[in-house]
Amino acid sequence: MSEQTPVPAGFRGLAGNIGIKDHHDDFFVVASEVPAHVSAVFTRSRFAGPSVVRSRDAAADGNVRGVVTLARNANVATGTEGEAHAREVQELAASAAGVPADEMIVASTGVIGRPYPMDRIRSTFHALSSPLPAADLDRSAAAMMTTDTRPKTASARVGGATVTGIAKGVGMIEPDMATMLAWFFTDAEIDRSVLDAVFRRVVDRTFNALSIDSDTSTSDSAAIFANGLAGPVGTDAFEEALYGIALQLVRMIASDGEGAGKLIEVRATGARDDAQAKRVAKTVVNSPLVKTAVHGADPNWGRVAMAVGKCSDETDIHPENVRIVFGDVETYPEPSDEETLRRAAEHMAGDEVVIGVDLGIADGSFTVYGCDLTEGYIRINADYTT
Amino acid sequence: MSEQTPVPAGFRGLAGNIGIKDHHDDFFVVASEVPAHVSAVFTRSRFAGPSVVRSRDAAADGNVRGVVTLARNANVATGTEGEAHAREVQELAASAAGVPADEMIVASTGVIGRPYPMDRIRSTFHALSSPLPAADLDRSAAAMMTTDTRPKTASARVGGATVTGIAKGVGMIEPDMATMLAWFFTDAEIDRSVLDAVFRRVVDRTFNALSIDSDTSTSDSAAIFANGLAGPVGTDAFEEALYGIALQLVRMIASDGEGAGKLIEVRATGARDDAQAKRVAKTVVNSPLVKTAVHGADPNWGRVAMAVGKCSDETDIHPENVRIVFGDVETYPEPSDEETLRRAAEHMAGDEVVIGVDLGIADGSFTVYGCDLTEGYIRINADYTT
Repeated sequence: MSEQTPVPAGFRGLAGNIGIKDHHDDFFVVASEVPAHVSAVFTRSRFAGPSVVRSRDAAADGNVRGVVTLARNANVATGTEGEAHAREVQELAASAAGVPADEMIVASTGVIGRPYPMDRIRSTFHALSSPLPAADLDRSAAAMMTTDTRPKTASARVGGATVTGIAKGVGMIEPDMATMLAWFFTDAEIDRSVLDAVFRRVVDRTFNALSIDSDTSTSDSAAIFANGLAGPVGTDAFEEALYGIALQLVRMIASDGEGAGKLIEVRATGARDDAQAKRVAKTVVNSPLVKTAVHGADPNWGRVAMAVGKCSDETDIHPENVRIVFGDVETYPEPSDEETLRRAAEHMAGDEVVIGVDLGIADGSFTVYGCDLTEGYIRINADYTT
Repeated sequence: MSEQTPVPAGFRGLAGNIGIKDHHDDFFVVASEVPAHVSAVFTRSRFAGPSVVRSRDAAADGNVRGVVTLARNANVATGTEGEAHAREVQELAASAAGVPADEMIVASTGVIGRPYPMDRIRSTFHALSSPLPAADLDRSAAAMMTTDTRPKTASARVGGATVTGIAKGVGMIEPDMATMLAWFFTDAEIDRSVLDAVFRRVVDRTFNALSIDSDTSTSDSAAIFANGLAGPVGTDAFEEALYGIALQLVRMIASDGEGAGKLIEVRATGARDDAQAKRVAKTVVNSPLVKTAVHGADPNWGRVAMAVGKCSDETDIHPENVRIVFGDVETYPEPSDEETLRRAAEHMAGDEVVIGVDLGIADGSFTVYGCDLTEGYIRINADYTT
C-alpha cells in the first residue's frame, strides 16, 4: 500500500460515486473550513463550457475556498440547460461544504454534448452530512481520472506548511475530449496578490510548457487554494516548492499521455529571449515526426532541424549556429559518426528522452514537456467510437 | 496501360537513374528549348537547403527555362560542400539541356546530412547527348517519388495551349524528411507579371491549403514554366485551368499521405474574412483528434468544436453561432439523434470526408485539404530507423 498524500490543515472533502456513468468514483469536493485565497487559470478555448465560465467568475475576486470536480461528463455544448446544471452543482457542493456558493469553483471533464444526470447528483449531495470529513486527496485524484492510467499527486513542505497538488489529464479525449485539471491546496499564509503572481509564474513554466498532442480541451483548469492555517512562509521557498510539485505532476501527465511510452523533454537554449526559446521548444515537442522518431528511439536530428526550421518568422535562427543534442550526445552540426548515433540511440531507448536545441543567439532558454506518438494513441482515439 | 500525360510544346528532358541510392529512377531534367518565364515559390524553413537557395536566386528575375530534380538525397545540412554540389548539379543540368546555368532551377528531396555521389552524377550528365529528347512527364513524376505510392500528374487544355503539372509529396520523411515538389509546364503565352500573380493565387488556394502532418520540409518548392509557343490565352481561362490541375494534384497528395486512408476536406464558411476561415480550417484539419476520428469514421463533432475552440484569438467566434456538418449532415448545434449520427458515420466511412464549419459571422470562406492519422503513419515514421 502506498503512502497517503499529505493534506494541508483545514481542508475537508469527499470523493465517491455520483452515478454519472457507472459505479467508479466520479466526483469529489475539497474546500477549506476557513476563508482562503485562490489563484486560478482556465482554458482559452472559444468552446469553454459553463463550468469554466462560472469558475472564472467565482475566482475573479481572489476568494474561493474549494473545488468540486465531476468526471465522465464535461457538460460542454449543452446549451442553457448545461449552464443551469453548472450553477446547481456549484450551489449543491458549496452547501455540502458549508461555504458560500461563489466561493466554490466547479470543474467538469469527460464526454461532451450530454446533460448531467441531475437527479442522481442532487440526491448524492443532499445525503451528505456536515461537516465533511478531512479531505482524501488520493481518492480525489483517482476520482477525476478519465483515460489516465494512474492518479497523480505530489506534495512538499515549506517551513511549517504543506502544499499538495493533484492532477489529471492524458490527452484530449474520453471518449470525446478530455481535459487537464490541476488543483493545489496549501495551509501556507500568503498574500493574495503574491499567491497569484507565484502561481502564474509556476504555471507558465510547467502546465503551459506541457503538450500531449497539441490539442486543447474546452475545460482545462488549474487553481491553488491557500487558507493560511499554518502561518506565513517565505515567498521564494514557497515558489520553489510549488514549482517542484507542479513539475512532478507535469512529468506524470506527459508520461501517462495517451498511448505514450516515453516522456520527451525539449530544452531550448541560446535563444534571443525565453519567449523565442519557448516557441522553438514547443514546435519541436509538437512535431509528429519528432514524436514518432522518439517512439522509434531513432536519433534523427534531421527531424529536429526540420522542426526548428518551421519557425520561419525567427529570422535570427541560422542553421550554422544551431546545435542539436540527444541526452548529452551532440549530433549536429558535428557529422554524426556511427558511434555517436549509437550513443544517442542508447539515450533514446530510455523512458525519458531529452532533446537539446541551442540556437547560438543569446541566453534565452525554456524547457517543455511532451510524449511520443504511438500506435496506442491512434488506437485510443480512432478505434473508440461514440 | 494508362494514357500518357500531355507534354506542352517545346519542353525537352530526360528521366532516369543517376545512382544516388539504388537502381530506381532518381532524377529528371525538363527545360524549354526556347526562353521561358517562371513563377516559383519555396519553403520558408530556416533550414532550407542550398538547392532552394540557388533556385530562389535563379527565379528572382522571372526567366528560367526548366528544372532538375534529384530524389533520395535532399542535400540539406551538408555545409559548404553541399552548396558547391547544388551549384554543380545546376550547371551540369543546364549544360545538358543547352540553357544558361542561371535559367535552371534545382530541387532535391530525400535523406538529409549526406553528400551527393558527385562522381556518378557527373558521369551521367556528361554522357547525355544534346539536344535532349521530348520530355516524358510520367517518368519524370515517377522519378521524384520518395514514400509516394504512385506518381502524380494532371493536365488541361486552355485554348490552343496545354498546361501540365507533376508533383510528389506524402509527408515529411524518407527516411529523414521529405518534401512537396510541384512543377507546371505550359506552352501558353502569358505575361510574366500576370503569370506570377496567377500562380501565387492558385498556390494559396491549393498547395498552401494542404497539410499532411503539420510538419514542413526544408525543400518544398513549386514553380510554373511558360514558354509561349502555343500563343496567347485568356488569363481567366488559364487561371481556372491551372487551379483545376493544381487542386487535382493536391487531392492526390493528400490521399497518398503517409499511412493515409482518407482525404479530408475542411470547408470553413461564414467567417469574418477568408484569412480567418483559413486559420480555422487549418486548425481543424491539423488536429490529431479530428484526424483520428476520421480514421475511425466517428462523426465526433465534439472534436471539431474543440479544434475550432483552439482559435482562442478569434474572439468573434461564438459557440452558439457555429454549425458543424459531416458531408451534408448537420451534427451541431442540432442535438445529434441516432439517425443523424448514423448518416454522418456513413459519410465518414467513405474515402473522402468533408467537414463543414460555419462560423456564422460573415461571408469569408476557405477550404483546406489533409488526411487521416493512422497506425500506418506511425509505422512509416517510427519503425523506420536510420
